[in-house]
Amino acid sequence: MSIVNDTFASRFGCAYIEDGGVTSAKGFSAAGVHAGFRKDPGRLDMALVVADEPCACAAVFTQNIFCAAPVQVSKEHLSEGGAGGPAYGTARAVVINSGCANAATGEPGRENARKMASITADAVGCTQQEVVVASTGVIGVHLPIEPLVAGAPAAMAAASPQGGANAARAIMTTDTVPKECAVTFSGDEIGHPGVVFTVGGMAKGSGMIMPNMATMISVITTDAPVLPNDLHKVLSTAVNMSFNKVTVDSDTSTNDSCFIFANGKAAPTAEPFEPGTPAFAALQAAVNQVCVSLARLMATDGEGATKLVTVSVKGAANDAEADLAARAVANSPLVKTAIFGHDANWGRIAGALGRSGAHFEQENVSIDIMGMPVCRDGLTVGFDEDEALRRFEDPEIALDIDLGAGDAETIIWTCDFSHDYVSINGDYRS
Amino acid sequence: MSIVNDTFASRFGCAYIEDGGVTSAKGFSAAGVHAGFRKDPGRLDMALVVADEPCACAAVFTQNIFCAAPVQVSKEHLSEGGAGGPAYGTARAVVINSGCANAATGEPGRENARKMASITADAVGCTQQEVVVASTGVIGVHLPIEPLVAGAPAAMAAASPQGGANAARAIMTTDTVPKECAVTFSGDEIGHPGVVFTVGGMAKGSGMIMPNMATMISVITTDAPVLPNDLHKVLSTAVNMSFNKVTVDSDTSTNDSCFIFANGKAAPTAEPFEPGTPAFAALQAAVNQVCVSLARLMATDGEGATKLVTVSVKGAANDAEADLAARAVANSPLVKTAIFGHDANWGRIAGALGRSGAHFEQENVSIDIMGMPVCRDGLTVGFDEDEALRRFEDPEIALDIDLGAGDAETIIWTCDFSHDYVSINGDYRS
Repeated sequence: MSIVNDTFASRFGCAYIEDGGVTSAKGFSAAGVHAGFRKDPGRLDMALVVADEPCACAAVFTQNIFCAAPVQVSKEHLSEGGAGGPAYGTARAVVINSGCANAATGEPGRENARKMASITADAVGCTQQEVVVASTGVIGVHLPIEPLVAGAPAAMAAASPQGGANAARAIMTTDTVPKECAVTFSGDEIGHPGVVFTVGGMAKGSGMIMPNMATMISVITTDAPVLPNDLHKVLSTAVNMSFNKVTVDSDTSTNDSCFIFANGKAAPTAEPFEPGTPAFAALQAAVNQVCVSLARLMATDGEGATKLVTVSVKGAANDAEADLAARAVANSPLVKTAIFGHDANWGRIAGALGRSGAHFEQENVSIDIMGMPVCRDGLTVGFDEDEALRRFEDPEIALDIDLGAGDAETIIWTCDFSHDYVSINGDYRS
Repeated sequence: MSIVNDTFASRFGCAYIEDGGVTSAKGFSAAGVHAGFRKDPGRLDMALVVADEPCACAAVFTQNIFCAAPVQVSKEHLSEGGAGGPAYGTARAVVINSGCANAATGEPGRENARKMASITADAVGCTQQEVVVASTGVIGVHLPIEPLVAGAPAAMAAASPQGGANAARAIMTTDTVPKECAVTFSGDEIGHPGVVFTVGGMAKGSGMIMPNMATMISVITTDAPVLPNDLHKVLSTAVNMSFNKVTVDSDTSTNDSCFIFANGKAAPTAEPFEPGTPAFAALQAAVNQVCVSLARLMATDGEGATKLVTVSVKGAANDAEADLAARAVANSPLVKTAIFGHDANWGRIAGALGRSGAHFEQENVSIDIMGMPVCRDGLTVGFDEDEALRRFEDPEIALDIDLGAGDAETIIWTCDFSHDYVSINGDYRS
């Protein structure tokens, strides 16, 4: 699926930049290099995104109790919100390695994550506190520091406003395609006539989770002006409707990290955008669009997944129940294998809804599969089997559910479950 | 796995009866016939279990909001606990058909379920209220009544104390083996010297859930004396530690039903066993043993499952969190494919635990796989890979987890996730 043609994410209203990515916004450079975390010298394994100057930075991390050392250290560096509070502050760069997750490594692991930050800071010319870190790869193995010693300076030397594509490739592990995009929004209607603001980003994470558990990592950059604490609100909202609405096999990684940097370079004399203003709303929409685009790409990527599946639930009693219902359907192996098999049987969807924890009456439930009604008032509606098979040829399958129990709604993305899923995850020997 | 050699369930202390089943207890007859619900005349598709006289009956049903007509009607017939209360009362027989679930069939479905009861009642010679019903098969299709007209009398004519085996076969859908067993316990130490009490049962439900969603149905019989409301307590306890602790792909059926009958025939002049007495405790242990035996058989059965997986969690903050943690591991496709692939990597187990909702500190977690320590204090412990591969040859794989956060514990059973799971569920066209 081409990001530029993502008709779903386009509903947020921003224009895509062709070949956009994490360096599309003014004042950001990036690089992707082979530092030596991976054996194959042709494999990029270290990414660096660096802002020309320190700027507002915010992050959202995995909620998994088993959280990795780089996550813990990045939280230490984005501490303006207090210990245990939202992660935001001022930063200059993010450095990401693949090949080793630095998870389940205890205090030595945290020391290594701090060294990763300090070695990078020396290369960039900033303080250790101004560098945030992320890692992805095998759990339980200590992070080798040697690759950083030459790798960090090499990455800094290579960093440029054209380096986004290499950075996007350097963070790939199980991904089959690099994931990046950028959008613009105009300052005309929001108090900055003639200014064009940009939001761009890159991400890794794929539908087929390899034995080393493919982490979701993303880096978003923007040249709009925002204060760190408000930037965290923007990110949090965008992540909750995008990355947090993607489920492939319901397991979250120990290393999931999403960073956003905002440097204000598109309008250097402008005041930071404040919540409640049209400018803030426009920025929110743009960040939403970038994150949703990247998240939907993640949901479909990976060897074996044949379909992007969009589970929409409406009519739920409240937001939490809408999420429970949609997620139960999206996580159901029965539903996902049925889609792989091009089977429009709604019984499996009902089974998942019925034990999801959402409250509703079965007589009020309606279900459509790929736009075809299959259930009304909890009873089967006949459908054209040939038409169903035709519609199953689409790359995106929509499951629309109305619980008839309220007004809350949500959308969750997933992919189907194929033979390759088992092959990839079951045929690997540790 | 042979039930008689189930060393786990044997911990409840009762002796197994060889080839025991739902007619092992005194005063019960059963039959399995081909009534015509299924096309193949060689396929048994209707089971009847009938008590010589009306006796105490209790049941536990699916909590799935999409609950089928036979479940709704059986609840109507076991109404001594009030509408919406525990299902118990007096009954004479249970009739079960395979081939059609009579689910998502609305009021006509309920009418058909009542007809199923009344036609069976006529054949048995009891009232409609004294017959409970269950169905398993395709959802959304109306129950044909014609097969019952000749089938019910045929089943009653064939019913005998030797009919348990046929009944166990008649309820099979995706099961690869019939599931039945019986145990005895002595009255010597519990106030009934010289009396031998029996608990037996049959069940259906398999690890490989077919497109028509293999329902879990079980029927337990005993010749111990118990009042209906107390019998419900026995069943409820046993079900919560057995059938409710089996998860294969985390979806529960619209038709899950578990019935128990107690007729007191082993000691016709004895008072009903009362909660809190040694006799009640002995009965509870026996029912637990039968249900756990049947449940463990369910967890492993089905084409493709190669292992029974036992997930034990201890050290949880409370019972609910122990269950969340164990269930998250047992439902994780990543964990289950790893077991299929003979991979002892604990990272996937950690990933499941960490997002399960259970509260703990990662530094306090210990994990053993097949008796080999792989994680201590949240850090990797090296293990002998060759020994791990040897142990993976066993039919039962144990995952033992200590969260170090309290005293609560639980056990959940599941099976591994193989290629056949996808084949069976994804290659079927509705």
